[in-house]
Amino acid sequence: MNIGIIGFGYWGTNLVRNFAALKEVNVKYVADIRKEREAGLKKLCPTAQFVTSPDIILNDNEIDAVVIATPVHTHYNFALKALNNDKHVLLEKPMVSGTVEAITLIELAEKKNKVLMVDHTFLYTGSVQKMKSLITKGEIGNIKYFDSTRINLGLFQPDVNVLWDLAPHDISILNYLIKEKPFSLNANGVSHTNNGIENIAYIIVNYSSGLIAHFSCSWSSPVKIRMMLIGGDKKMIVFNDIEPTEKIKVYDTGYEHKTDEDKKNILVDYRTGDIFTPKLDQKEALSLMAADFISSIMNNTKPVSDFISGLEVIKILEASQESIKNKGKEVLIK
Amino acid sequence: MNIGIIGFGYWGTNLVRNFAALKEVNVKYVADIRKEREAGLKKLCPTAQFVTSPDIILNDNEIDAVVIATPVHTHYNFALKALNNDKHVLLEKPMVSGTVEAITLIELAEKKNKVLMVDHTFLYTGSVQKMKSLITKGEIGNIKYFDSTRINLGLFQPDVNVLWDLAPHDISILNYLIKEKPFSLNANGVSHTNNGIENIAYIIVNYSSGLIAHFSCSWSSPVKIRMMLIGGDKKMIVFNDIEPTEKIKVYDTGYEHKTDEDKKNILVDYRTGDIFTPKLDQKEALSLMAADFISSIMNNTKPVSDFISGLEVIKILEASQESIKNKGKEVLIK
Amino acid sequence: MNIGIIGFGYWGTNLVRNFAALKEVNVKYVADIRKEREAGLKKLCPTAQFVTSPDIILNDNEIDAVVIATPVHTHYNFALKALNNDKHVLLEKPMVSGTVEAITLIELAEKKNKVLMVDHTFLYTGSVQKMKSLITKGEIGNIKYFDSTRINLGLFQPDVNVLWDLAPHDISILNYLIKEKPFSLNANGVSHTNNGIENIAYIIVNYSSGLIAHFSCSWSSPVKIRMMLIGGDKKMIVFNDIEPTEKIKVYDTGYEHKTDEDKKNILVDYRTGDIFTPKLDQKEALSLMAADFISSIMNNTKPVSDFISGLEVIKILEASQESIKNKGKEVLIK
Amino acid sequence: MNIGIIGFGYWGTNLVRNFAALKEVNVKYVADIRKEREAGLKKLCPTAQFVTSPDIILNDNEIDAVVIATPVHTHYNFALKALNNDKHVLLEKPMVSGTVEAITLIELAEKKNKVLMVDHTFLYTGSVQKMKSLITKGEIGNIKYFDSTRINLGLFQPDVNVLWDLAPHDISILNYLIKEKPFSLNANGVSHTNNGIENIAYIIVNYSSGLIAHFSCSWSSPVKIRMMLIGGDKKMIVFNDIEPTEKIKVYDTGYEHKTDEDKKNILVDYRTGDIFTPKLDQKEALSLMAADFISSIMNNTKPVSDFISGLEVIKILEASQESIKNKGKEVLIK
Repeated sequence: MNIGIIGFGYWGTNLVRNFAALKEVNVKYVADIRKEREAGLKKLCPTAQFVTSPDIILNDNEIDAVVIATPVHTHYNFALKALNNDKHVLLEKPMVSGTVEAITLIELAEKKNKVLMVDHTFLYTGSVQKMKSLITKGEIGNIKYFDSTRINLGLFQPDVNVLWDLAPHDISILNYLIKEKPFSLNANGVSHTNNGIENIAYIIVNYSSGLIAHFSCSWSSPVKIRMMLIGGDKKMIVFNDIEPTEKIKVYDTGYEHKTDEDKKNILVDYRTGDIFTPKLDQKEALSLMAADFISSIMNNTKPVSDFISGLEVIKILEASQESIKNKGKEVLIK
Repeated sequence: MNIGIIGFGYWGTNLVRNFAALKEVNVKYVADIRKEREAGLKKLCPTAQFVTSPDIILNDNEIDAVVIATPVHTHYNFALKALNNDKHVLLEKPMVSGTVEAITLIELAEKKNKVLMVDHTFLYTGSVQKMKSLITKGEIGNIKYFDSTRINLGLFQPDVNVLWDLAPHDISILNYLIKEKPFSLNANGVSHTNNGIENIAYIIVNYSSGLIAHFSCSWSSPVKIRMMLIGGDKKMIVFNDIEPTEKIKVYDTGYEHKTDEDKKNILVDYRTGDIFTPKLDQKEALSLMAADFISSIMNNTKPVSDFISGLEVIKILEASQESIKNKGKEVLIK
Repeated sequence: MNIGIIGFGYWGTNLVRNFAALKEVNVKYVADIRKEREAGLKKLCPTAQFVTSPDIILNDNEIDAVVIATPVHTHYNFALKALNNDKHVLLEKPMVSGTVEAITLIELAEKKNKVLMVDHTFLYTGSVQKMKSLITKGEIGNIKYFDSTRINLGLFQPDVNVLWDLAPHDISILNYLIKEKPFSLNANGVSHTNNGIENIAYIIVNYSSGLIAHFSCSWSSPVKIRMMLIGGDKKMIVFNDIEPTEKIKVYDTGYEHKTDEDKKNILVDYRTGDIFTPKLDQKEALSLMAADFISSIMNNTKPVSDFISGLEVIKILEASQESIKNKGKEVLIK
Repeated sequence: MNIGIIGFGYWGTNLVRNFAALKEVNVKYVADIRKEREAGLKKLCPTAQFVTSPDIILNDNEIDAVVIATPVHTHYNFALKALNNDKHVLLEKPMVSGTVEAITLIELAEKKNKVLMVDHTFLYTGSVQKMKSLITKGEIGNIKYFDSTRINLGLFQPDVNVLWDLAPHDISILNYLIKEKPFSLNANGVSHTNNGIENIAYIIVNYSSGLIAHFSCSWSSPVKIRMMLIGGDKKMIVFNDIEPTEKIKVYDTGYEHKTDEDKKNILVDYRTGDIFTPKLDQKEALSLMAADFISSIMNNTKPVSDFISGLEVIKILEASQESIKNKGKEVLIK
């Protein structure tokens, strides 16, 4: 299978390395407008052809699939042309800049019967796979809250805010682990650069069941924190991605309430117990993601990180933008 | 000086121990409706008289000052009576249940020329005093964000939500460290006990200057986190209260933006540098708080944790309640 | 039962508090040569009589048992007199200053049919009890190594070195967890105070089976470390006593060797797996120790921390002293 | 400058990558007896020639310098031949298998006026350079102890014990930071693989001044620890190499003793103060080491990690082996 990769920046480099390592794949082209990136490609993958025009890839009939790792505002047009030219498409996260664009692409992909996939790499990590397995088996119980913090002294993006940059990781994990659809959200943020692009922002996602999800994202923290708390009514999970190996801890911890009839009070019972730190699969997530894309094309199956996952992330990002503009007002998620 | 303490629960016990240790103070009475608490008092402070009726304290002309450590909804009436009877008053946090009550008490205390103080114990810790000193000296620069997390598997309170229980600590620190007055806030929360009392809640406080403050409070976390990030435009502070000794770290870290004229982009420069972990004063904060109350009475001075501090906390709690009821809508702080 | 406690310093205070709380016990006397300590006793336990002469306790026929919490060089004479006067004896760790003294006391206690116990408090902690249970059930397998670090910026003792001060904790745990008797040891240390009293010292204990135990003790570390690694051929334990709750972690980790016949090499296979952090009993160890002493007297049973445990600790301390004097030479443990 | 690299295993790969990146260097050959390694070299450095016989490198007159990254028992013969053929030599750590071999090579290198260097990579890390700078400036004072722990579940080596494998890192750091020459050592260890190769071992190094150094090395720990404590009489350093960024902490902590004349006791005063966590140079140490080798050749200067450093490590390893054989007996270091 011949593929072309558009965008040869930091992440594009990782994509080339991982796709080139798959035996079913020939990386025919890599496109980047920065001509000076060619030398790096020659070292990394001498058999791939460097081009500065993405159209060479999009118009080549030998190309089966296109991988798009360019700034998000360019995703839609590249993906549209690729699908129209009957190519399978893998988009970097976030999928596109809005839900209308996402839905247009999805409908086109379904019409053309092509794979349209979004690279939510985190879904392929041993950590997320282990949490998915624990939740699916019912060990955690009904999820009552989900709280994610992703902060560090980060690369301020010039075109998208901190939520569009960092939150897709966490939102895609939320959607992957929890089946219930969110009802609404509130978001707040602040820009310290006077360009209106938020460098610190928070989202709260509300669910009809009483589940609450909270996201804290910042490019402005002196310390790097990558932590997720997931509370079920049976057990609770702490996912600390900074830990080198002990990333997932499962706490046999809970609380139950009952009504005290006389006093009309709610009485809450606590339970704390053992902690279990499962061994995690150490395979490189990006390599598994690349293989899933290729396998979905060859076997005509749905990838783990499919277009629905991509769309759901965009819905939340778009709604969060509207909420921030409206000073934290509740915005429904359709 | 004769004092009476109303409420002999967990915190009341600490108050009795600390006031009894002050040489200027005679703890004449301790009141608690639970008669069975008397034995505990006999052990802790044999010279104090145990009474079940607070009125004995409030009506005794020999009593100079009253310390009130009862459930918050009872604070107002006890304090009102104490002030009317010309006694100085120390209230446990949070001060009272609403701003109208707080203002009434403050006006009465000023009229009567009595000390009215709220026990925001954290202001007396070595950690907060060190942060205050660093900020006052200008070492941190202008504060751009304040982010506090206070979560654990906590005692669900039957009468107040998690914000009224936990956030007074963090809000009082915020107000102590930062002079700018908050403009508005948004708050969200969820109750998992079906009594409408939130066990998980978040507040975002907005300031005209672009400063943002964020509070995350939970009684439902399997892990205990007590962390505050304070970002200035010169340096940043991490206050980790779980650490036994290295609680405060000062990061010589920052970011600056400038406009790239040609590209109309904002360019951001980062700076990371040394970290400084100052030695902290180890004195017990509650003992310093008690001494400040007594000293304020004797010297007719303002305590560190004065009624303004108490009122500001109540304003934010009250506004947060309104915002939660209105699904996260922005609420102005008057 | 009437008991007397000799020595009312830091630890003696804890002992008084815990024995006074036992309903079977009347703390009749507390002895300390420092008259000024009397006021503290009156606050802590008003019913106990303060005396400056231990002989009042040792000669009083109403006293059933004596608790000795004085400097170690005084233990032997107090215990000898107490046993001769038909009293049960609890000695603070380390038991006495040498094995000859220890054996004399043990023989006397057996002749008199009195309980002679040493306060190795750690044996009563939830952590050690959990490790004991795991090892006894065979979950860890055969123990291959035991490595303990106990360092901090500590109170330099004027009369005993850092091993006599700190290592009894770790040696008593070693002896409690592992049945095999040690064969020999090597010890090294250094004194930075020119009084010949080592403030940093190390012991290596050798066993016939190939088990090795290592102890690192220091009063001169800027950081406090309380860590024990116990490696079995099935699983391994890390006991980190600084952690507030997650003190014990059980690693499903191991290595196996087999001979590669052709190459005459040893091939080693590794196994890493899940980690299990058991919930620990939170009861105060000192209170359980006190109760065990009383229960052993009343039921004529052996306490967990019996005189054999005390003697084994003294044997290792004495041998370590000889090894240090002989520049680390191997010393047999009889 | 033409260089040849002998040994293309894990570390050889890193060496090829780093030397190939230096503009003054042409990696002409890479030798490895495992023919199947050739493909890896083609990818990494297509301009280098793969050979299975080291003699091709050692006999080629165009080769200026040889880098030897083979098992330690082969180092001596390769280096001897290289020096005799007038080539500069860089040896992987540990330098050779014994002091006699080391001295022979050193004398030959001096006679031939060639650079003979040992790759103690750690000396080039930002961490070690920062500690060196602090100690040289006198900020730490006179060093009183040095304590290093390097343990993990490691690759059991088939030919050398855990000390020869892991301790060269720590011993080279010790010798680099501290000028005083060690006087003697004691070492103990145990083999759990029945081939007599120790997988757990400890060294204590004694100095005339009262300085003590302690090394704990293990291939059998469930947790990875890389920690060094260095105590001076002014300040103390903790070097925790597991920390991603805050590796070095400088504690303003100390203790001083004075004699209490009356009581003939030593009184010790403690001091704890601020902690300073300096920013460290992030450059890759191996790249700096490679550059130092080339620069030493071109400028005829001494590299940081010179043959004296290599010899001193071998002296301690050899003495530790003798001490282990003699059951921990003190062995003088000549």
